[in-house]
Formats: sequence, structure tokens, C-alpha cells
Amino acid sequence: MDQASGSPLERGQGCVLRVFRGFSSIYANLKARAGHICTPNMIAETPNPPYYAVIFTSLRTEGDNGYGAMADEMNELAKLQPGYLGIESARDGLGITVSYWRSLDDIKNWKANTRHLIAQKTGRDQWYEHYKVRICKVERDYGF
Amino acid sequence: MDQASGSPLERGQGCVLRVFRGFSSIYANLKARAGHICTPNMIAETPNPPYYAVIFTSLRTEGDNGYGAMADEMNELAKLQPGYLGIESARDGLGITVSYWRSLDDIKNWKANTRHLIAQKTGRDQWYEHYKVRICKVERDYGF
Repeated sequence: MDQASGSPLERGQGCVLRVFRGFSSIYANLKARAGHICTPNMIAETPNPPYYAVIFTSLRTEGDNGYGAMADEMNELAKLQPGYLGIESARDGLGITVSYWRSLDDIKNWKANTRHLIAQKTGRDQWYEHYKVRICKVERDYGF
Repeated sequence: MDQASGSPLERGQGCVLRVFRGFSSIYANLKARAGHICTPNMIAETPNPPYYAVIFTSLRTEGDNGYGAMADEMNELAKLQPGYLGIESARDGLGITVSYWRSLDDIKNWKANTRHLIAQKTGRDQWYEHYKVRICKVERDYGF
């Protein structure tokens, strides 16, 4: 049956379905370009070690001040960088974000990304009371 | 003035003061033995790299089932282990706990601690849906 026929309710469902498919396709496209399957609130599916981790621990200032939008943008932008392997994030007073990378050069390139440099500067000026960045080599991992 | 003399109120204050001093002394003692100044919701004050990090990322099952009490106990017990440098923790759906250590041997000894082995087994059996442990060498750090 053609989706344009049928009751107005059925046509509405068709429209919602098309919009949903549109978003799914954008998401699948981003995922394919980034070559990974994870979101910040999932355990990252990283390859066998060795690989690298950036542990970013922070205490926020009061108020949003554009932080939420920039954090979302940085999460999406990071996924598109060469060597990106995944990200994990939690905030509970203290914020911890761990991003995983193939090499130290990939981390250096992401740190030097123009848009990311703006985020880093605004972070120091406005969003963070304190933060610490630790660059690590993951030597071993296990889990279930 | 002897604290036993004076009004009942003054004697009460003296008692509270002695109890407080008792707790302060236990806390100072623990802190001195552990040789660090941090709690799980603060940024850990780690020494200059290199040192080691254990990134523990987890998704919990439903309900507490004794998890909270054991987590508190493990945090306190970890602090007393040789080579312990600090801990950072946040849960927001996903849980991330990063503990910092002087060497790989210190991490191995803590993993083999009898009480900790029980916690690890109960974790796999009851508390966690999934988890991942990553053993890392911290090569560089910076912050403000």
C-alpha cells in the first residue's frame, strides 16, 4: 500500500517513520565515518592494547554558560578525528571523561584542532574551576 | 581550667571536643599512612609522571545489594595499600573509577588482596552488568 493513501493517522505514521529513517541514516553515516560503536555513556569498545587514553578529570564552575552545547559538539567532532577509538564520560560532582586513541600523534592532532583549541580556552576561562589531563598508554585490559 | 570542672554544658563541650579530636587523630593517622590528600570526588593529587592508572568503567545491575557499603570499604582499604596515589570516581549511568598507583606491582598486590578478591567476585556475580578494567602508564599530565 502506498504510504500517501490510507487514513490521515497512517499518513502521519509514514511521515514520522521517514523522519526517523533520516536521523538513523545520519547517525549510521557518522558512525561509519568514525568507525566505532560507542557513545559517552557506554563502555567503549576499544581494540587490543596497546593504545592510548586521555583521562580528563574536572570540577565545573556554576551555571552552563554554553558548556553543554560545546561538550556535545566536541564529542561529535572527536569521533571524526583520525585514530579516535572511543569515549567514556560520567559527572557526579567530579567529571571524568576518558577518550581512547590509536597513538600519541592522534592525541596531539586532536589537541591542536582549531575548534577544540577554542573549547580548551573557554574551558580554562569559564567552565572549569580545576581540571587535570593525564596522557596514558593502555598496556592491558580485561572485563566482561 | 580543668575540663572536669565548670558547668555541665562546659563539661559536655569538652567531651565533644575530645571525641572530635579522637576522630581527627584517626583521620590524620590514616592520611599519614596513605601519604595522600584526596577523596573520590576530588581531583587526585598525583606525583610527577610516570605512574600508573587503573581505569575501571562499569554498568551496574538494578538495586544496591550491598554494593554501596563494599564500595566505601574498598575505597578506604585501597588508600592503605602500598603505592596507592589517589582515586577519582563518578557515576552517571556509566560509572568511571580511576585509581592511581606507583607501580604495576602495587596494582597486582591490590588486585590479590583477600578482601578485594571477594569484592571482585561479588561484582561479577551481582553488582555489574558489564565492566572493563584498563591498566595504563601515565606518561604526561597537566592541568590548572
